[in-house]
This record gives sequence, C-alpha cells and structure tokens, in this order.
Amino acid sequence: MRVYDIIEKKKLGEVLTDKEIAFVVEGYTDGSIPDYQMSALLMAIYFQGMNDKETALLTECMAKSGEMLDLSAIEGIKVDKHSTGGVGDTTTIVLAPLVAAADVPVAKMSGRGLGHTGGTIDKLESFPGFKVELPIEGFIENVNKHGVAVVGQTGNLAPADKKIYALRDVTATVDNVSLIAASIMSKKIAAGSNAIVLDVKCGSGAFMKTLEDAKKLGDAMVRIGKEVGRNTIAVVTDMNQPLGNAIGNSLEIMEAIDTLKGNGPRDLTELTHTLAANMFVLAGRVATVEEGLSLAAELIESGKAMDKLREWVASQGGDACSVDDYSLLPAAAKQMDVVLEETGYVAAIDTEMIGKAALVLGAGRENKESIIDLGVGLIMHKKIGDKVTKGDVVATLYYSDNSHTEAAIRYIKDAYTFSTESIEKPQLIYTIIR
Amino acid sequence: MRVYDIIEKKKLGEVLTDKEIAFVVEGYTDGSIPDYQMSALLMAIYFQGMNDKETALLTECMAKSGEMLDLSAIEGIKVDKHSTGGVGDTTTIVLAPLVAAADVPVAKMSGRGLGHTGGTIDKLESFPGFKVELPIEGFIENVNKHGVAVVGQTGNLAPADKKIYALRDVTATVDNVSLIAASIMSKKIAAGSNAIVLDVKCGSGAFMKTLEDAKKLGDAMVRIGKEVGRNTIAVVTDMNQPLGNAIGNSLEIMEAIDTLKGNGPRDLTELTHTLAANMFVLAGRVATVEEGLSLAAELIESGKAMDKLREWVASQGGDACSVDDYSLLPAAAKQMDVVLEETGYVAAIDTEMIGKAALVLGAGRENKESIIDLGVGLIMHKKIGDKVTKGDVVATLYYSDNSHTEAAIRYIKDAYTFSTESIEKPQLIYTIIR
Repeated sequence: MRVYDIIEKKKLGEVLTDKEIAFVVEGYTDGSIPDYQMSALLMAIYFQGMNDKETALLTECMAKSGEMLDLSAIEGIKVDKHSTGGVGDTTTIVLAPLVAAADVPVAKMSGRGLGHTGGTIDKLESFPGFKVELPIEGFIENVNKHGVAVVGQTGNLAPADKKIYALRDVTATVDNVSLIAASIMSKKIAAGSNAIVLDVKCGSGAFMKTLEDAKKLGDAMVRIGKEVGRNTIAVVTDMNQPLGNAIGNSLEIMEAIDTLKGNGPRDLTELTHTLAANMFVLAGRVATVEEGLSLAAELIESGKAMDKLREWVASQGGDACSVDDYSLLPAAAKQMDVVLEETGYVAAIDTEMIGKAALVLGAGRENKESIIDLGVGLIMHKKIGDKVTKGDVVATLYYSDNSHTEAAIRYIKDAYTFSTESIEKPQLIYTIIR
Repeated sequence: MRVYDIIEKKKLGEVLTDKEIAFVVEGYTDGSIPDYQMSALLMAIYFQGMNDKETALLTECMAKSGEMLDLSAIEGIKVDKHSTGGVGDTTTIVLAPLVAAADVPVAKMSGRGLGHTGGTIDKLESFPGFKVELPIEGFIENVNKHGVAVVGQTGNLAPADKKIYALRDVTATVDNVSLIAASIMSKKIAAGSNAIVLDVKCGSGAFMKTLEDAKKLGDAMVRIGKEVGRNTIAVVTDMNQPLGNAIGNSLEIMEAIDTLKGNGPRDLTELTHTLAANMFVLAGRVATVEEGLSLAAELIESGKAMDKLREWVASQGGDACSVDDYSLLPAAAKQMDVVLEETGYVAAIDTEMIGKAALVLGAGRENKESIIDLGVGLIMHKKIGDKVTKGDVVATLYYSDNSHTEAAIRYIKDAYTFSTESIEKPQLIYTIIR
C-alpha cells in the first residue's frame, strides 16, 4: 500500500477503505508517512470530505493509536461529557458532583490547556490541597468509592490525533467537520466511557459560528458514536457571550458552587441541568430528559449535589471546608469596578475580548510556560439584553497588580456593543441531536 | 505575510497576489516554508485552480528563482522548442539542423533524464566525439558561428520548479494544468529564448490522455507566454503510439538523419516539418505556416539541412563522417526479429510497453545510476492501421546480450492489439494553438 495512491484516491473523491485509513493513521503516527504527504491528504479530505463510515474508522484508528483506558472495573454506565470550548465554561465542575449525586459514575480525565483561563484541572487546583494527579488504580478506586473522580490526562491517549491536529493547525485544514468530529471523539473513545454527552458551542465566541455548522458537527459526532457503539448525544448551545458571569479560576469555582447551591447564573444553571439530564438518560438512570431535569433540580434542592461536592473534594485531598468558606479559596488582592460611559441595551459581547481581559490579568496561559494566577479574573454584571445606564458597573476586575488593569478595561470596553432599542436575551439551548 | 493565510486564501478559492506568490516561491526555495505547508497549498491549488495572471506570476517567480540565461549576444530571434514527452521522440535532433539551415538561431539546452531511452543529450553522444558540455561562452559562440548548439543543461535553471515538482510528484498534485504549464514554461523562460514552440503530446502514451486535456495545457502555456512577453505556439500532436519507428539512442539518431535526408518515417517527417514551420513563423523568417512548410521541404531537398547537421556535429567535436556512415555510430552486437502469431490490422500500440521493451534491453535509465547502452533498442515495422499477417516481422530487437530479450518480446507482444476490420491511420497533428 502506498500513501501516494491514497492521496490520489481521496483527491478524486473516492471512499477510503478501513485498511487504507489504518495504514495512514499508523504510518503517520510512527513517522513512516511524512508530514508533506499527510498535509496533502488532509487538504484533499477538506475538499472531498469523508462519509460516516470513513469518519468513524478514522476516529477509531486515532483512538487506538495509544492507550485505551479500561473503565470496566467501574460498575455502571460511564457517561463522559465534552464541551467544544468557549469562554467561562465551568460546566464540568458543576456536572461532576451533580451527576455523581444521582449515582451515575463520573470518571473524567480533563486538561489544562492554553486559553483565557486555565482548564478544568487548573480550576480544581483552586481547592486547597486538591490533587489532580492520581494513578489509574486510585482514579478507579475513587470512582467506585465516591462515585466521582476528575484527574489530569494521564497516559498516552490518541497520540495520532495529537500529531494530526498539530499538522492541521499549520496547514489550514482544521475546519472540516469530519476531521473535527474525529479528533474530539477519538479522545473521548480512548478515555473509556460507555456513552458521551457533547456540548457543541455555537456563535461568535465559538469555533462554529453558525447554528448550521454547529449542528453539522454535532450530527457528525453523534453518527461516529453510533458507528463505534458509544451512545452519543449532542446539545447545541449558545456561545455568543461568555457562559455564566465569572471568568477566572477560583471565581469560576465559586460560581460553580453557587450553581450547585441553586444560586448560580441562569445560563450556567440551565446548561448544566440540561447536560446532566441527558447524561442521566444515557446512563439509564431516567427514561426521559424531563425526568432528568426534575432529578437534577431535586439533587440541588435537597443539598445532595453539594454533599457530593464536599465528598469529592475531600476524596481528592482537597479542603472540603473551602466549599462553604470561599475565603479559603485563592483570591486576588485587589478589585476594581469597570464603568462604561454609555446608556442602552447590551446588544453583543465579544467573547474573545472578555477572555483576553481575563488573560492579561493572569487568569490563563499565553504559552506552555505561563504560570496561572488562580485568584484573578473578572465578574460580568451585564449580559446581552441587560439595560445599562451611564455610570453602571458592567464588570468587576480581580487582580493582583495594576500593571494590566488598563489593558483589561480597554478589552472590556471594546467587547461591549450597545443598542438604543431593547434586545431579547439569547436562547441558550438550540437543539439536541441524538 | 504568513504562508498559513495564503493556504487558507487559496483553499477558499481566492486569487493570490503577486506578492503572495513571490513569497511562497522564494520561501519554499530557501527552505523557510516547510514541505508540509507547500503540499497543502499545492493540493488547494489542485482544487481551486489559478487564473491566467496567477499562473504567469508563478511561472515568472519560478523562472527567476535561479540563473536566467542571457542569449542577447546571439543575433536574431531565438525560438526554443519543447515536447511534453512520450516514446521515440527524436524531434530535436531533426529540428536543430533543419531550423538552423534557415538561418534561424538554435541555442538549446536539453536534458538526459530518466526514461525508456536517454534524453536528447544522451542520443547526441551517439555521434563519436560529440561534446554535450560547453561553457556558456562557447555555447553562444557556436550559435553565432554555426547557427546551432545543443548542450546539456548548465547552471541552476529554475531551482524552485525542481523543488516544487519533486514535492508534487509524491503528493499527488502533478495533474493540475496551471502547475504543469508553469513548470514547463518556467524552465523555457529561464533558458533565455525569445519565443517558444510547444509540442503537446496527447493520447494513451502521453501524460495528457485526451485531446481536451492536451488543448487545455497548450492553451495555458500559450497564455503564460503572452503574459510574460514570450511569443508561444502549441502544436497538439498524437502520442497513441511511439513517434517514428526507432526506439533507442543511436537507432533514433539514424532515423533523424534519414528524416533530414527526406527518407524518414511519415509521422516524424510531418511533425518535424510542422514544428519547424511554426518556429520559422515565430522567428519572423516566413509569414505563414504554409511558407514555413515549403521552406522546410526545400531545405531537406536541397541537402542544406544535411549540410547543417554535418557542420553542427563537427562544431561540437563530433565525427561528421558518422552522419553519412552509420557504421561509425554505436551499434548493438545482435539483432532478432519479433514475429507475432496473429493476423489482422494493428488497432492499438501500448506506447508504455514498447518503451519498456527498449528499457529492458538497456536503452534507458531505470535510475540515476543506470548506464545507457547507446546501440540497443528496437525498430517497429508495424504501426496503427498496418496489416499484419501471421508470421510477419512486427519489430526487430537490437541487443548486446540475450538476458532480457525474452522480456522485451513479451512487452512487444503485450503492446500490440489487433482488429479483424481495417483501422484508419491516426491523425498526427490535432490542432495548433497560438
């Protein structure tokens, strides 16, 4: 088999066989297929696409290119969750204890990653003492004992995806639905869960700008799940503004706790309850999403979700008291209100700009070497549709020194667009694909 | 400027600017743009194409990536000729003295190359003593003194094309008309002539299988010529069977001499006269192709073309007597007739198979290290449309040892297809694009 013939075949719009796809993934991972042939193939795929079967085969081959986590020692149906990114996404911190409180096992590997704030793993380190690194046995033991464990990615999951993604990133071949879907799903499949709930973000602050594109991606991932025997649901949700009000690591942890107490922002609450309800359905815990929503509400109201949060934090070595006493969480030394000189209704918020404001304050990583300041960030007081009167505080900065506050304020001012006419609050959940 | 943005732009079907094209060609040539980005761009070009202006810009940038030959010291309009390949192509050996005999200067650089037989330069070495390597001053002096010089490519002509072609060859991005046209024309432009006559081969034995594709390629090259100010004509000709009857280096030299004497095969005669006539037109020697054809016939008939051949061979150190005494040319030790057990009309000849028969006998190079046996090869006695009766000799092998004759005979037998009904001889010249 020659990779040249495979490139030629895809270039002409033909369907690749399972052997051809395996040959490419294995050859590229082990270095026998050079970058320049792989990038030509990826560009041919961009133009000619892949059908459902090819996409699923690519996903499986990438998943199997490294370690495949075996979660069979955990009883019950393991449901994983994945969000396609955005700003202020605190859902995992809310979902893990909420889902575990329903006796649905949560065995999640999460990332740090580059971004405006840290990843879930960074955020969890806001709990004093919280250990995000556990050996695989300890990870499984914790899930069996406490129903929940969230740890940093260990092992070598889907190395083929990692290598292919790095190449796509520099050859303008990222934006192909099949390739995006295969990339996400390969990691989820390698991570060992039985079923997957996907939160596909859509809007100006997401990779998928239009509802149409987001639906296509959700569709593609759900079909991959079907092909490879992992039940998958995709919830398409709005990312035309940051989710919730807090951007920053410990600020988001507090917001997640508030949400588990039933006092969270409306959007974060709605999203986490919807995702949890779908996870309950996939786990066979309830029959319908409606029942799932009721169960989620009940677990919040009864305090069971909060109990599970305390248990979880303690089980990973964290100080459970910090769940109830926010003064134990990392905090920025200073605060500053941001006031805008405009009156009107918030018409749009540039999510990217808000993210940058948090980043310059130190909440995220500009490069792999950056050190995150867990306490800094910002709280937004005005979201799309809200009325703002000249002199109103639209956001509060949490920072440790003055050197970047001016830049952060500039980003926030640039992020907001106002309208003189009233603006409707955007819909949060667009559609659910199953 | 970032190559990523250029890939993205072409991927979306946009037109690249002159600065972007120059950036890519320079960057790829100097190594600052890696193979994997270039191959992604080439695949995007395959799908989105390039317009006339982009193609001409690419051609010029590739031409200017190395040395640009300056032929201004040669008086008159220098017309170059290029054939797009095939088997048994002896045209340059006929054309060089024929055109020079009309006082049109021939200053040609030619290649050795891999193939079923050697390139023009290898074939010329069949003349005992013929020197194919001349310093540029000697090359120009020879043209000024004798009207003709054909030498091996010296200097570093169009290195960008060389590097880009090597990448296209392994990434399935060869078959794009703009890229093929730019590759051929970049070398012709760097070679310094004022005008160019292209012989675009078409048919089963050519890269362009259909007349439509061959016309497209001819069109593209003529348009590049216009854009860059080099008058260009493309003659689209048949390559559904080998040109002429001889395949092999000194065998082709003899056939070329026969043609210059007026005794050549019909197809080689028609083609060389047509190409010469068009070169006369571009050089301003005659006003019309018809006048050009008359002039060519007159130069053959009067013996002036033969006189020029003798002068040319002598001027490059060759033995002019070998032109009239074929026994002075390299010859194979043995001959063998190939007889087929079929009766009928030759319906098709697989050009590639005939080429392979010559190659196994030692006429060409399988790799860069192969040594060519100048004397070996084959003469075809039957071409498309000819009647063959069981027991007729269809070809004669010229070989030095028996070890590969069986394979050669097998190739020849496989190459011929017969029909019980009579078959029309194929048209040779399909169209002329100017």
